[in-house]
Amino acid sequence: MSADQLKLYESSGSPNSRRVRIFLAEKGICVLRIPVDLGAKEQFSEAYIRINPRQVVPTLVLGDGTAIGEVPAIFRYLEEAYPNTPLLGTTPKDKALVTMWERRMELEGFAAVMETVRNKIPGLKGRAIAGAHDYEQIPALVERGRRRILDFYADLDARLATVPFVAGDHFSAADITALVAIDFATKALDLGIPDGNEATSQWYKKVAARAGAAS
Amino acid sequence: MSADQLKLYESSGSPNSRRVRIFLAEKGICVLRIPVDLGAKEQFSEAYIRINPRQVVPTLVLGDGTAIGEVPAIFRYLEEAYPNTPLLGTTPKDKALVTMWERRMELEGFAAVMETVRNKIPGLKGRAIAGAHDYEQIPALVERGRRRILDFYADLDARLATVPFVAGDHFSAADITALVAIDFATKALDLGIPDGNEATSQWYKKVAARAGAAS
Repeated sequence: MSADQLKLYESSGSPNSRRVRIFLAEKGICVLRIPVDLGAKEQFSEAYIRINPRQVVPTLVLGDGTAIGEVPAIFRYLEEAYPNTPLLGTTPKDKALVTMWERRMELEGFAAVMETVRNKIPGLKGRAIAGAHDYEQIPALVERGRRRILDFYADLDARLATVPFVAGDHFSAADITALVAIDFATKALDLGIPDGNEATSQWYKKVAARAGAAS
Repeated sequence: MSADQLKLYESSGSPNSRRVRIFLAEKGICVLRIPVDLGAKEQFSEAYIRINPRQVVPTLVLGDGTAIGEVPAIFRYLEEAYPNTPLLGTTPKDKALVTMWERRMELEGFAAVMETVRNKIPGLKGRAIAGAHDYEQIPALVERGRRRILDFYADLDARLATVPFVAGDHFSAADITALVAIDFATKALDLGIPDGNEATSQWYKKVAARAGAAS
């Protein structure tokens, strides 16, 4: 499905951008992708601030110029406008459960990984929180972050021992957020799925093999 | 509208519970409210852990026993099951914009207030993050939290100088989350709306006067 009127401002190295790329690929939606060069700090440029005042990627810009920031909001737009291959659930109950599990994967996994990286990496000094304001790094958050990520892995393994996908019977946005969190924890912090987390390893093989995961 | 088959486990002093109470009141939905005594640590009881393994309030339990945790997930269920008086937008674009603004009010306002309180209050020692795991308080987060809240107030005032409600033309879940964040910042941290933030003060008068705000 082609949605040429949609523009996605994004960066290849940005985990939040990858969440949206996988979502698009799973639904088979093609949008115009516009790279934002984070290395050159293009997200802080006046041109980009006019698109997204929070100065973060990704941003989805609709045909009428409306800019949608924040990954769950972009997911919501895409699911509403392109309902085929639902990734946010179909019944009221399923929609609520996917919202809950996607959020838990974000708060307990993705956000823990991001907080650890942002408080650790020298290149992010003074930028410990994404957004329009500068905050100094707090070293205690790096150590706490490692503990949070290990707690996330333990809880995720317990969950996946009971269901095939994070939100239950079907692949959903919750799997996307968990997959991206794990891949980034592995790459940026060398904190991959712990040995012995069999349920997570089996799930990972399955979701990482989907075509969209290469996005 | 009566929804007797729905049970809401909640606490009168919990800001997250208040978000749901206001949402229910605005939509005119009556549910069976079951108090969880946070003072007596009832959220950590075996009985409550069976309902919500994250050990937090609120939880919405459906007629079939399905437990929905996390405020945005509860919002989503209620909006889908009771579409009258929409609070999450009506068109795909509006739904995305409300999702974006409700999330920004949460990340920039509500979460900043909660992080500050949880890292400051002696009664929350060892419980700096809500959920199933114990994390020690980090004093540096209290000072950073005050700065985050002031940045939130400045950004909110700039936004409300251009639109009547947080997400645009209509009252929505984004206003609820902002209102609850501000009231809790005022009560728990003595950090009310700064003098001179005229747009926010005007907006506050309007939303705090709605019947649901007393919830």
